[in-house]
Amino acid sequence: MILEGIHQRSIKRTADGAGACILDQRELPWAVTWVELRSARDAEIAIREMWTRGAPLIGATAAYGLAMALAEDGSDSALAASYALLLEARPTAVNLKWALDKIVEAARPLPVSDRAAAAFARADAICDEDVALNQAIGQHGLAMLRTLHAQHPERPLNILTHCNAGWLATVDYGTATAPIYLAHDAGLPVHVWVDETRPRNQGALLTAFELAGHGVPHTVITDNAGGHLMMRGQVDAVIVGTDRVAANGDVCNKIGTYLKALAAKDNAVPFYVALPYTTFDPDTATGADVPIEERPGEEVTWVAGEGGRIRVTASDAANPAFDVTPARLVTGYLTERGLVDRV
Amino acid sequence: MILEGIHQRSIKRTADGAGACILDQRELPWAVTWVELRSARDAEIAIREMWTRGAPLIGATAAYGLAMALAEDGSDSALAASYALLLEARPTAVNLKWALDKIVEAARPLPVSDRAAAAFARADAICDEDVALNQAIGQHGLAMLRTLHAQHPERPLNILTHCNAGWLATVDYGTATAPIYLAHDAGLPVHVWVDETRPRNQGALLTAFELAGHGVPHTVITDNAGGHLMMRGQVDAVIVGTDRVAANGDVCNKIGTYLKALAAKDNAVPFYVALPYTTFDPDTATGADVPIEERPGEEVTWVAGEGGRIRVTASDAANPAFDVTPARLVTGYLTERGLVDRV
Repeated sequence: MILEGIHQRSIKRTADGAGACILDQRELPWAVTWVELRSARDAEIAIREMWTRGAPLIGATAAYGLAMALAEDGSDSALAASYALLLEARPTAVNLKWALDKIVEAARPLPVSDRAAAAFARADAICDEDVALNQAIGQHGLAMLRTLHAQHPERPLNILTHCNAGWLATVDYGTATAPIYLAHDAGLPVHVWVDETRPRNQGALLTAFELAGHGVPHTVITDNAGGHLMMRGQVDAVIVGTDRVAANGDVCNKIGTYLKALAAKDNAVPFYVALPYTTFDPDTATGADVPIEERPGEEVTWVAGEGGRIRVTASDAANPAFDVTPARLVTGYLTERGLVDRV
Repeated sequence: MILEGIHQRSIKRTADGAGACILDQRELPWAVTWVELRSARDAEIAIREMWTRGAPLIGATAAYGLAMALAEDGSDSALAASYALLLEARPTAVNLKWALDKIVEAARPLPVSDRAAAAFARADAICDEDVALNQAIGQHGLAMLRTLHAQHPERPLNILTHCNAGWLATVDYGTATAPIYLAHDAGLPVHVWVDETRPRNQGALLTAFELAGHGVPHTVITDNAGGHLMMRGQVDAVIVGTDRVAANGDVCNKIGTYLKALAAKDNAVPFYVALPYTTFDPDTATGADVPIEERPGEEVTWVAGEGGRIRVTASDAANPAFDVTPARLVTGYLTERGLVDRV
């Protein structure tokens, strides 16, 4: 998307084609720093230490990392070693393994000398596929937003989103944000309510930064405020991303999503979940079967901001990182195949 | 309640009886500083600059302030001047005017030389009345908590609260917290989930501090987490305070209360509102008639913590300070007259 006036992707090859450039997301929005990754080890550090984040973007970063490893040493043993190194960078990221497997499939059948070029080409394709997928989600979402806007053509469309399912989590466009960017680019007047998304504030830090760069009108709100705004008619639609959708349509997403879905239902505001079709998990029966990650309490008791962090309570904290939104609260699932109301 | 091992009230007369001591709540929980107020002007500054807060406590502080003014000059003109000074300290605080009027009623009929003593006695009585009122709320709440605990006697009772309706907002016990303190003191095992309550973090800063001082087990959570905890059976009751209850039972309280009430309803968790009966406002028909204060966006974009504050987003923010919880989501109103299910 547009950042500092230029259309950019969140990952791209270096000028010489032999490495990959990513944004150091730990410094956003206070500093925009592009980092050059030059080896599998660089990629592994960037993933492990969360310079980069978001399932699709982690996958793309790992894919380039494996290609770089093959450029250095195309042997089977080097391939296996770098595969293992990268896979361990974020053990729970399913997309990471998927992307690494694609590179192995593309490279291993080839002579050692041809493997790196094939791997880079496959990594490029992984990126292009992600962009196309998000554009498709965006087009289906845009059609939905046009219909909503037609109901109140005299005013901007107010969309609420939670956390960051934006282009900083993908190669471009994002999932939940793709309809918003496409609507804005198409001249539909949109305004976004950005939940700050405690405890890590991905909304206030990342989504707001994205929208500002692209010139989309937006306002940060506390996670507490969305229900009130819906009650007073100031939200036309909610669009969120998801980490996993169970077979029955229950949605696992960042903690707090469930509360917004309840408020949307209570106020007849449509609630959409944007996702690649692969996020549907037929092996998980319902949301109750999803294990919820309990993260360190320090993420709650300390708040990161410009130039450092500050302690905000003297007591201990619990920090469940995700919650489950029951399928009955979801208006529709925005996928690359279309807007579907059931899984 | 108990603070630093001693049972204390949040406001008390100075040792010589001629002034009042309050906690400087701006420094909590990082520093416990008692401040002596020695004049109406001291009291006015403490109220205006929010060293002290909460409707009942503001009223008590103003009452002592007016008594101090009369000790200096008992004339009608001095009384009128100090009344006006104190009334302007927080113009929207209804309880402030109520308390000042009580002092005037007690003092003005008397000879000038007797006025100060009568005013101090009336201010003491205002404090005692507030304590008795909160104890009564607490007793009714305790009965309710005993019933809930009897359903699962094998484990502690988990209570969720939002913002601070605790003893730091009253003279002692608080409203929403009174049942919790009485339950804890009665040996009922309670554990409190404390919503941090963005943007001003009154839960993480004040409620957690209160509970820690009194030795009540508690855990701070983000405002996003309560719905998830309810869904997983980890909340037995929600108790909150309120700024105003409309004639139809709709509850105006700190922003985010509505979301917790929705989640409580969705998970069959009882949702209680604790309040003095005077908080019922028969002149407001429904919650939709309550004007919602829009506070500065800087309260969202900057977060206060230990030793200072930090900027947490580069974008602008909106900051509605209250929301309305529809009466249909309220299980009962805990008042000094008993637990009632309708206004």
